[in-house]
Amino acid sequence: MNQPIKVAIDAMGGDFAPESPVKGALMAAQERPGDIVIVLIGQEDAIRAQLPEEVPANIQIVHADEVIGMAEHPTKAMQQKTRSSIALGYHLLKEGKVDVFCGAGNTGAMYVGALFSIKAIEGIMRPALISHVPMVNGNVGVILDVGANADCKPEVLAQFAQLGNLYCKYVLEHEQPRVALLSIGEEEQKGNIAVQAAHKILKEAEHLHFVGNIEGRDIFLDKADVIVCDGFIGNIVLKMAESVYEIMNKRNLHDAFFDRMNYEAIGGSPILGVNGNVVIGHGISSPLAIRNMILLAEKFAQAELNSKIKNALLQSI
Amino acid sequence: MNQPIKVAIDAMGGDFAPESPVKGALMAAQERPGDIVIVLIGQEDAIRAQLPEEVPANIQIVHADEVIGMAEHPTKAMQQKTRSSIALGYHLLKEGKVDVFCGAGNTGAMYVGALFSIKAIEGIMRPALISHVPMVNGNVGVILDVGANADCKPEVLAQFAQLGNLYCKYVLEHEQPRVALLSIGEEEQKGNIAVQAAHKILKEAEHLHFVGNIEGRDIFLDKADVIVCDGFIGNIVLKMAESVYEIMNKRNLHDAFFDRMNYEAIGGSPILGVNGNVVIGHGISSPLAIRNMILLAEKFAQAELNSKIKNALLQSI
Repeated sequence: MNQPIKVAIDAMGGDFAPESPVKGALMAAQERPGDIVIVLIGQEDAIRAQLPEEVPANIQIVHADEVIGMAEHPTKAMQQKTRSSIALGYHLLKEGKVDVFCGAGNTGAMYVGALFSIKAIEGIMRPALISHVPMVNGNVGVILDVGANADCKPEVLAQFAQLGNLYCKYVLEHEQPRVALLSIGEEEQKGNIAVQAAHKILKEAEHLHFVGNIEGRDIFLDKADVIVCDGFIGNIVLKMAESVYEIMNKRNLHDAFFDRMNYEAIGGSPILGVNGNVVIGHGISSPLAIRNMILLAEKFAQAELNSKIKNALLQSI
Repeated sequence: MNQPIKVAIDAMGGDFAPESPVKGALMAAQERPGDIVIVLIGQEDAIRAQLPEEVPANIQIVHADEVIGMAEHPTKAMQQKTRSSIALGYHLLKEGKVDVFCGAGNTGAMYVGALFSIKAIEGIMRPALISHVPMVNGNVGVILDVGANADCKPEVLAQFAQLGNLYCKYVLEHEQPRVALLSIGEEEQKGNIAVQAAHKILKEAEHLHFVGNIEGRDIFLDKADVIVCDGFIGNIVLKMAESVYEIMNKRNLHDAFFDRMNYEAIGGSPILGVNGNVVIGHGISSPLAIRNMILLAEKFAQAELNSKIKNALLQSI
């Protein structure tokens, strides 16, 4: 039998912490008793107040004194609050005490924390945040970067393509992912300067099934498994999709496809290209969103993507 | 009584030309007999074949020998095909023989044609394409640029804000338009480099009600009347919105708000900042889309935005 995956979660992270993280963790722990162990990190009293008297055997608590607020400056907060739940999560991850760390707190602090503690894999220019994209035909694709890197050089975009390809292959188990650049026309010379230059690099890339550019209208049409863009555009696309779901929900429109645009269903965004498994959740995460983030974190840790990324980098030298 | 507005339309422009342009023109002509005169430009025989025997009195035909194809290189085509319907449309506009020119043909050729013939207004760095945005509360806002300028300097983004503000004021008749930058966080320091710098300029701008940044999730929530972004992002946002409508339509989901995302309802994108009134339509335009483009063109011409733009530029010197 396999060892259970050890998932650490920032119990103080998100707009509804600690209630949402603890309740979501309970859901996940009860569903997968032999498969995951959850380590709740945060103020022990506050966490216990949200747990039943009989805590499930696969839930552990690690106390952390400090909390990083949602609005704090990421770098400053990570430097100053060394006993915060986020800092402690990264400490456990770095020491190998947990397999994956996830949290719905301050996104910047989660990202900066990864760069400070477990650090970028050597050769990775800019670690990226990736998000699942529901396709109208039922498939699942990915888009990256979705917010960590607003301005990207062509070489960085090309590396995102490699990272997304490996994620799609080993986490989503697509056999040969189709990789595309998000642009404003299908032709090679369409797009902004960075995308045009990235197109030239990707056209020549080996180990990659590059299918060219796709447009905004194609995002959900399963024309590509991996959609590559800078974090400015990716974040706008992601949030616009979330808002479409929210507007439909408010207007009482329900549909199997659009329901999959709900951030709760997607769970969170793994960081690709750092020496450890990290998933960042949405600040407004509900217990259901946290449960799905934990299940995504489990799957992500199982895929052991980091070693695949390192191998791919070695091959390309 | 006011003189009717003279609307020239490229009868050969779009995937379904001349059928769609001619049928759409007929619809508009019959609806507004005293208000508009429509000039159909293109191959006379092909146009006549789509018209009834008794042509309405407010439809005229101007014959053009040549046609610019949808896939032709814009600059080359405009240089070589001087007797094309697009070239002729700009000729009539420049000579003051029509009040506005619109077409659903090769977007690049329509844009380049404007720069070559009627030219940018002095002081305008980059003319922009603007599109209406339906708000969930029933209001209408605008987004610009939606595709003409993929890479934009901060000063260009700031000028888009001015152009969008004037459009909103004089064409949509919003009293004091709220102007926002599309970004990835509300705080001033969020965004890519160009947006951060544009924020600094707009914060100081007079004659403008700048409300800061909005995010992808806010686009349809009526947080701003004028949404400013570069043409790369604007095009992706616009096409993604169109695709949401198309997917809903295919899935038999109908809703008063989302139906307004249908490109047919929006009609087309005016070019702001050139010496004449031009509206560019969607390549796939149906007769209904053409009808709406013509009505938008009428409204756009009536607003006499160019003189307002020139005045605003004089004021800001």
